[in-house]
Amino acid sequence: MTTIKDVARDAGVSIGTVSKVINGVHVRDEYYQRVDASIRKLNYRVNLNARGLKAQRTNDIAVIVPTLENPFFPPMVDAIEKELTEKGKRMLICISRNDRNKLHGYIEMARNNRVDGIFGVTYSNIDDDILEHMPIVSFDRHFKPSIPCVASDNFSGGELAARTLVEKGCKKLLCFWTGSDYDCEPSKRIKGFQQYCLRNHVEHNVLSYMDYEQVDTGFMYISQIYRDMVRNIIQAHSENGKFEFDGIFCSSDHLALVVKEELEGIGIRVPQEVQIIGFDGIQIMNGGKPIVSSIQQPVAQIAQTGVRMLLQLIEEGSAESVVDLPVRFVEGGTTRQ
Amino acid sequence: MTTIKDVARDAGVSIGTVSKVINGVHVRDEYYQRVDASIRKLNYRVNLNARGLKAQRTNDIAVIVPTLENPFFPPMVDAIEKELTEKGKRMLICISRNDRNKLHGYIEMARNNRVDGIFGVTYSNIDDDILEHMPIVSFDRHFKPSIPCVASDNFSGGELAARTLVEKGCKKLLCFWTGSDYDCEPSKRIKGFQQYCLRNHVEHNVLSYMDYEQVDTGFMYISQIYRDMVRNIIQAHSENGKFEFDGIFCSSDHLALVVKEELEGIGIRVPQEVQIIGFDGIQIMNGGKPIVSSIQQPVAQIAQTGVRMLLQLIEEGSAESVVDLPVRFVEGGTTRQ
Repeated sequence: MTTIKDVARDAGVSIGTVSKVINGVHVRDEYYQRVDASIRKLNYRVNLNARGLKAQRTNDIAVIVPTLENPFFPPMVDAIEKELTEKGKRMLICISRNDRNKLHGYIEMARNNRVDGIFGVTYSNIDDDILEHMPIVSFDRHFKPSIPCVASDNFSGGELAARTLVEKGCKKLLCFWTGSDYDCEPSKRIKGFQQYCLRNHVEHNVLSYMDYEQVDTGFMYISQIYRDMVRNIIQAHSENGKFEFDGIFCSSDHLALVVKEELEGIGIRVPQEVQIIGFDGIQIMNGGKPIVSSIQQPVAQIAQTGVRMLLQLIEEGSAESVVDLPVRFVEGGTTRQ
Repeated sequence: MTTIKDVARDAGVSIGTVSKVINGVHVRDEYYQRVDASIRKLNYRVNLNARGLKAQRTNDIAVIVPTLENPFFPPMVDAIEKELTEKGKRMLICISRNDRNKLHGYIEMARNNRVDGIFGVTYSNIDDDILEHMPIVSFDRHFKPSIPCVASDNFSGGELAARTLVEKGCKKLLCFWTGSDYDCEPSKRIKGFQQYCLRNHVEHNVLSYMDYEQVDTGFMYISQIYRDMVRNIIQAHSENGKFEFDGIFCSSDHLALVVKEELEGIGIRVPQEVQIIGFDGIQIMNGGKPIVSSIQQPVAQIAQTGVRMLLQLIEEGSAESVVDLPVRFVEGGTTRQ
C-alpha cells in the first residue's frame, strides 16, 4: 500500500507538507501542485475503511481534557466528536484535572487496547515511557518529537492583540499571563505580543504568574485564590484610581473577565479607560456574543485537523504537527468600537 | 451482608425512604429516626470498597449526554466526575446527539463489561430490551420502573417562575415551551406554572412546540430554523410593537435568551415591557453572572444524588428515583429588581 512517505519521496517534499495538503492546510502553491500530482500518480489514499478490520482495533478514541468547567473545552470536544463520527470512530471523553495519575490511567487504558488512540489536551507532565508506542495527538503541548501537536497560530494571535489595542488608541500595553508554562504553544502569544511592541516602539510590560499545575485544581474563574491574586496585581499597578496601563492582553478569556470585573470593582471603566483583549473566543451559549473582546481560536479547524492527524498516526505511524491554525479578533465589549 | 432491603424491612419504611436517608435527601423526621436506628442496629453500610473486587467490574462508569454544546451539561458532567472520583470510579463521557443508534452502541459497550454502569442524560427513545440487566440511572427521564430517575423539583420550579413573575408585576403570563415531550420530568414545569396561575386567577397561556428529537440534531441556540420559529411565534402574538404577554416563563435558558433577543429585535424592551424567566441557571464562565433570570437547577446535588443512586444500583440491584431536588430563582437581568 502506498504510504504518506512514498508520496513525500515522490513529490520531493517533507511528510509534513504532504500531511498539510491532505488535511487541507495551506501550503505554497508549487508544493500543493507537486503533492497533488504524486497523490494521483501513486493512487494514494488514506484508507479509513480498512482500519476497523485490523486486529485489536476498537474504533474508539479517547479525548482527554483537564476539565469541562472551563467553557473553552466543551465545544472543542463536541467538534472532535463530530469529526470522529464522520470517520466511523466513537469517542470517549476523560477528565484528567491535570492529575498525572489520572492521565497515566487513561493512557494505560488506551495501551490495553480499550481505545485506538488519544487526543490529549493536558497541561500536566507525562512520564516519557508511558508515551511510547501509543498514538497520541496533543493540543497546545509538545511532549516529544514523535507526538504531533495541533494548535492555533498563537504567535500571530499575540501580535494581533497588541496591534488591535494600539489601533484602538492604547499607548501603554500590558501582557498579563497566568497559567501554562513556557514549553507550551500558547506561550508564543507572549512572544508575538512582545515582537509587535518592540518593532513598533510601543511601551509595554509582561506580567507572568504561576504554573498551571499548581493552580488548576479547581476551575480558576470561581477560585477565590485566583481572584485575590488578580486583585492584588491590579492594585499594585494602580494609583489614585488610575491603572498604569491602558491596554491589556490577557492569556485567556477567563483571566480577561476577572481583570475586567476587578478593574470595575475599583472604579476603573472598561473599555473607556482600559481596554482588554482575551484569548480563546468564548461565546455565551456557544454561538452568542463573545464574553470579552478576544483572539478567537478556530475550534472546528482544530478538531478537524487534530482528528485527521490522529487517524493518520494510527494508520501510518506518523503525522506532522500543525501549529498555525488561523486566529481572528472578535469584538466583545471590552475594547472601543 | 445487610442490604438496603433489610434496613427497609426493619424500619418499616420503603426502600426509597432508606435510599433518601442514605443520599442525604430530606425525609420526615420520624422516618429519618427509624431508618437511622435500623442502620445502626443492623450495622448496614454501603460497601464501596468491595465493589472493585467483584468479578468483571472495571470501576468505569459511562455518562451519556446529548451534546456538550448546550452549556447546561458540561458543569453537570464535571460534577459527576468529581463524585465518581471520590468513590474510586473512573468516568467515560459519551456524546449521543440523541441518536438512538449511538445510544444503543454505548449501552452495548456497557453490557460487554467495558463499563459497570451508565448515567444517562438522553431525550431519545431506547429499545426496552436493551435496558434489561444494565445498571442505568436516568436524568430527567422515566424509561421504565426499574430505571431510577434523578431530577430537580420541576413542578415547584414552574410554580416559582409564575409566582416570581406575578410578584414582579406581570399581569398576563405565557409559558413558552420547546423541546422535551410530556413523558419527561421537565414537563412538570408546565403543570406547576399552570397550577399557580389557576389557583391565583392569573391570566395565562401555554404555547408548546416540537418534539426534542426532531430538532436537536444541532444545538438549538445556533440553529436558524429554531430562531426563525421563535421569531414567527413572537410576531404572531405582537401587535403595534406590543407583545400580548408581559411575563414569559421559558422551558430553558437558551430559549429565554433567544426570546429576549427576538423581542429586542422588534423594539420591545426586556425587562421594562416584558419580563422573562428561563430554566437551568446557566452562568457565564460557570460561576459568573446568570445569562438570564432563571430557575436554577442544583447541579452539584443532581450529580451527588445520581452517583449515589447508580452505585447503589450496581451494588444492590435497585435504587429509588429522586425527583425533588430543590430549585431556586436567580436574578439575571431579564426581570425587574
